[in-house]
Formats: sequence, C-alpha cells, structure tokens
Amino acid sequence: MKSLVNIQLSENEDSVIILDQRLLPSRIEYLELRTAEEMYDAIRLLKIRGAPAIGIFAAYAMYVLSKVSKKSREKTLEQYGDYLKSARPTAVNLQWAVDRMLCASDLRAECRAVHDEDAAMCEKIAENGLTLLKDGDCVLTHCNAGALATSRYGTGLGALILGRERKMNFKAYVDETRPLMQGARITALELMNAGVDVTLICDNMAGIVMAQKRVNAVFVGCDRVAANGDVANKIGTSGLAILSKHYGIPFYVFCPSSTVDAKCKTGADIIIEERDSSEITEMYFKEQIAPQGVKCFNPAFDVTPRELITGIVTENGIVYTA
Amino acid sequence: MKSLVNIQLSENEDSVIILDQRLLPSRIEYLELRTAEEMYDAIRLLKIRGAPAIGIFAAYAMYVLSKVSKKSREKTLEQYGDYLKSARPTAVNLQWAVDRMLCASDLRAECRAVHDEDAAMCEKIAENGLTLLKDGDCVLTHCNAGALATSRYGTGLGALILGRERKMNFKAYVDETRPLMQGARITALELMNAGVDVTLICDNMAGIVMAQKRVNAVFVGCDRVAANGDVANKIGTSGLAILSKHYGIPFYVFCPSSTVDAKCKTGADIIIEERDSSEITEMYFKEQIAPQGVKCFNPAFDVTPRELITGIVTENGIVYTA
Repeated sequence: MKSLVNIQLSENEDSVIILDQRLLPSRIEYLELRTAEEMYDAIRLLKIRGAPAIGIFAAYAMYVLSKVSKKSREKTLEQYGDYLKSARPTAVNLQWAVDRMLCASDLRAECRAVHDEDAAMCEKIAENGLTLLKDGDCVLTHCNAGALATSRYGTGLGALILGRERKMNFKAYVDETRPLMQGARITALELMNAGVDVTLICDNMAGIVMAQKRVNAVFVGCDRVAANGDVANKIGTSGLAILSKHYGIPFYVFCPSSTVDAKCKTGADIIIEERDSSEITEMYFKEQIAPQGVKCFNPAFDVTPRELITGIVTENGIVYTA
Repeated sequence: MKSLVNIQLSENEDSVIILDQRLLPSRIEYLELRTAEEMYDAIRLLKIRGAPAIGIFAAYAMYVLSKVSKKSREKTLEQYGDYLKSARPTAVNLQWAVDRMLCASDLRAECRAVHDEDAAMCEKIAENGLTLLKDGDCVLTHCNAGALATSRYGTGLGALILGRERKMNFKAYVDETRPLMQGARITALELMNAGVDVTLICDNMAGIVMAQKRVNAVFVGCDRVAANGDVANKIGTSGLAILSKHYGIPFYVFCPSSTVDAKCKTGADIIIEERDSSEITEMYFKEQIAPQGVKCFNPAFDVTPRELITGIVTENGIVYTA
C-alpha cells in the first residue's frame, strides 16, 4: 500500500494513469485516461478523489489535453479546463490547478511542479500536525485525507504516518463515512498499513467514542476554506465538530494553504454538491436496500463554521481560528 | 404494509409466528418459532426488533415455553426466561415482559393482555405526540419506532401516522441508521405507506438538514429510560440530541412508561450491548467492504443525558426533563 502510486503520466505522456479508488481495498486496478470525457468521469465518479489529488490529476490532465487541443483544434485548452472544473464544483484545488496550468508557459514542467510541491507541502503539514500529538495518542478521523488523497503522507493522516516513521505509537478511530465508505475502504487500510492501531466505526458512533473519552483529538482534511475560516469538507464533518465542542475535544482541519479560497467570503458562499440518490439507496453500488422510489437528500459536503474549529494546520503552520 | 402483522401466536398455540424484519423491504417472510433457541436467536439476530415488539414477542414466547416446560420438564420457565432475557441486555421491555409472565397465573390471557395493552398505549402515545405537531411540519427520525417495532402506530412514528389518518400532511427526514439500516429499510417504508413525504439521508447528514432549517423537531423511540430521565436508544441518538441542542431544534423521545427502569438510577448504569464487527465491515450482510482483519467498535446503543431531551412522550402525557 505504501508503494501504491495514485497518479502518474504514461511513458509517452499522452495519458494519465490513475489507481481506481472506488475498488479499494479489495481490488487494485489502474486506469489509463486519454480523452477529456474520460478525465471528467474520473473526477465526477470519484475514480480519483481527495482534494489535493484531484488538483494534481487535473494538472496532468491539462498537460495531456494541451497536446490534444493543439492536434485536433476541436477545443481550446480553456474549454477543456472549464469542462474539467465542472466535474466537482466544491473542489477548490481542481479550479486552482486548472487555472495554474492555463497561466503556465511550460505545461510539462508545471504539472510536475504541482505534484512535487504537493508532496513537499504534505510533508510540512504532517510535520506541523505532529506537534499536536504525543506518543500513544488516539485520533478520530472522517473520510480519507491520506496519501491516496494527495501525493504523499496526506493531510489529515500525515501526522500519524510521519509519527509512525519515527517509531511513535498511535490509535485511530475511523468513521466509515457514508455513503461512499472512504473511511472504511481507504483510511482504515492506509492507517493499518502504516502500523496505526485502527478501530473502524459507523459515523453515528463518533459521539459515544467521544463520550467514553476514547480520543484525544479529531483530525480531518478539507475541500475548501472560506476567507473567514469556515471549512467545507466531507458530509458529516460539521456534525463531528459540534460533538467535539460538546465533549471538549480539540478539532483540527488539515490542508495545503492553496485550499483557502480568498474569493469565497464565508461558508455560506460555498456551493454544496448534491450527488445521486443511488449512492444512499444502493449501499455502495450493491443491492437496493431502501424502498423503491424513496426520495433522498445526498449532499457530499457540509460547512463547519470557524468557531467550531480549534485550528487549521497548513504547510505554513497552525492557524487558531476559534 | 399497514396490514402486516409482525407477531402472532400460531393457531394451536405451540409456536410464535413473526415477520422477519431483516429482509424488509425487499422480502416479506414469516418465521414460525417453537424452541427456546429459535426464540433467543430471533431476538439476538434482530429477526424481531423494536423495544415494545420484543416485549410482546417475549410474552408469547414465554406462554409457548410454559407448555414446553410442563411437557418436557427439561427446564423451568424461570430458566427459559433467564435465557431469553440474555439475548439483548439493553432491552428493558424484554426483561419486563418475561418477569410479568413469570408472575402471571393465566399465561394465555397474560400474553394477549401484553399485546392489547401495547396497542392501546401506542395509540395514547401517538395522541399525545400529535399535540406537538401542526399540519405541514417536518420531523427528523432515527432507527425505527413504527408499528413494526410495536403493535400498532408505533412510538416515535405514531404521531405522524395518526395525524395522517386525520388528513394532516407531514414531511420526514429518515436517518438510514447504520449499521443495520432500520431507517432506510423499515421507517422509510412505513412512513411512505402512511403517506408522509419521506426523504432518506445517511446518518452523517442530519447536521446539514438541521443547519438548513429543514426540520421542526426530532422524534425518536427508546429502549430504556433511567430513573433520572437519561435515555438509551439506537446508536447515534445522543449525537442527534447534541446537534438538536446546537441548532435549537426540539428533541422528543417516545416510549411506553414501562420503558422507565426504576432500578437504573442514571444512564451510566445502562449496559451498552456491543455487537459483531461483521455488521459494520460487511455492509448489511453483503460483500466485505473494509480491509480484512480491521478491528471495529460496534455499540448498538448510546445514552442521551436528560438535559439534552426536550420531553419524553408516554401514554400518560409529556414529561419535560430539561
């Protein structure tokens, strides 16, 4: 697992190769994406996921599409960029990476720079996060903010993984994270492989875990930070923050500083992506579990107001917002 | 659905027939239970579920077992009672019904009385609950506290169903209720059949539903009320109560007064049943979703302290605890 590469350019640089994250942990399968449609679908259908990883992927995708655009002259690179951006409206790194590629003169160097910078940034985030932990601590986490969501170390999980490399011991409670089970499928696997003592729970068990004083802190990643410090992250995050406040448990958000969207004043300005009902009714793409025809509400994210966040950990340090 | 009978004695009164609630909504299948082992398994494996329904079932089961005990002389009725009680330690109605049958002189009349009294009680609970609602209201609910969990009307859902019979219109957000999906499978079906406008959500979406002011109140059932008013109910209930307090939404618990356990001083004295990991890792008895060997914490209930509860609605009226 540690050696799994989630995003890379193909050898002749006419496609992007990704690990299909929907199939983890039971299957390890790589996909080679050549067309803008394939790339859009990869983002939309969460074959590639995690805010920084989507940014890295979009950078490589824009490089490949710049060649397609030159050759076929069907669409401009700007048009491809707008198309990719529309695949996931909440992911600010997607918008950011596309815009950065549109401004670059050497696109080949630029996409590699996006990737390398992310790796360096994640290591700094992990280093800053590790100052919050002592040997033996137990952290609760939600969704997946590990290496597969970024380039290396991850954001929310980076401190645990870096600490393990330094022979520290940690426990973690992992929310399974309905509806798409990123916690059960990916976070549990990444942390078990790193040697963290993992306990998987359903999302609605986080409260009892806190009530029984089983965790020292909550660590989550995030998809977008508004200028005022409000944070959009995987659905359920704001609820965890309210529980943390109730039980007096520190609640930290981890992200590269590029996740801050200065154009977005507060959380109220963040568009919450709503996804298909079948994600809920079919229990992770399997048999129908709910009554036929039931209406669903399936927001993919929620907004956690800054006053519920103990601190935001970036590559530049820890900002205390509350 | 309205006509589904969940518990009945067989015609010659040597077995109890139940609707297997694990298979809903896709399959309607009845089970005929003759032996103490079959009855224990039915409770333990949630073929029969819902605090009052377990009590009614246990009463019928004790009547059938009293005949077995007389005939075979292998075990006393007290021994059968202790065995049945051990199937679900948190369910106070189970303990209560077994003890009541042990004290009864006419067991045949007594089990029918338990059933009839529950139906009358549920109707009163529904009537009392309906005073909290006005036409057009929207309620959020968790797990299943409908007719299939009781005898008729249900507890937490009774007010909605009784109100519908009187041509009132309601909306409901239904938590799917991991791990066993009683909300998605049973509550959604019962409320849709009653003509309530149902929206199914994952448990971690309750926070955004409240933040967006989509609901007027939270209605839940419960499994045990301590003498001080602390309440044990399906895992996730206490988290919902904390969210309700944060967002200023009234939080009501519905139960027959027999659910109050006077011997239990506070919520701290309630034993929380922990169930098998496979309920989490195998996503409702289907394919393995989590990494092989992952450790799980699977508490079936949690305790909501009285100060988070707006009121407890019983057949005798509404007790305001906060």
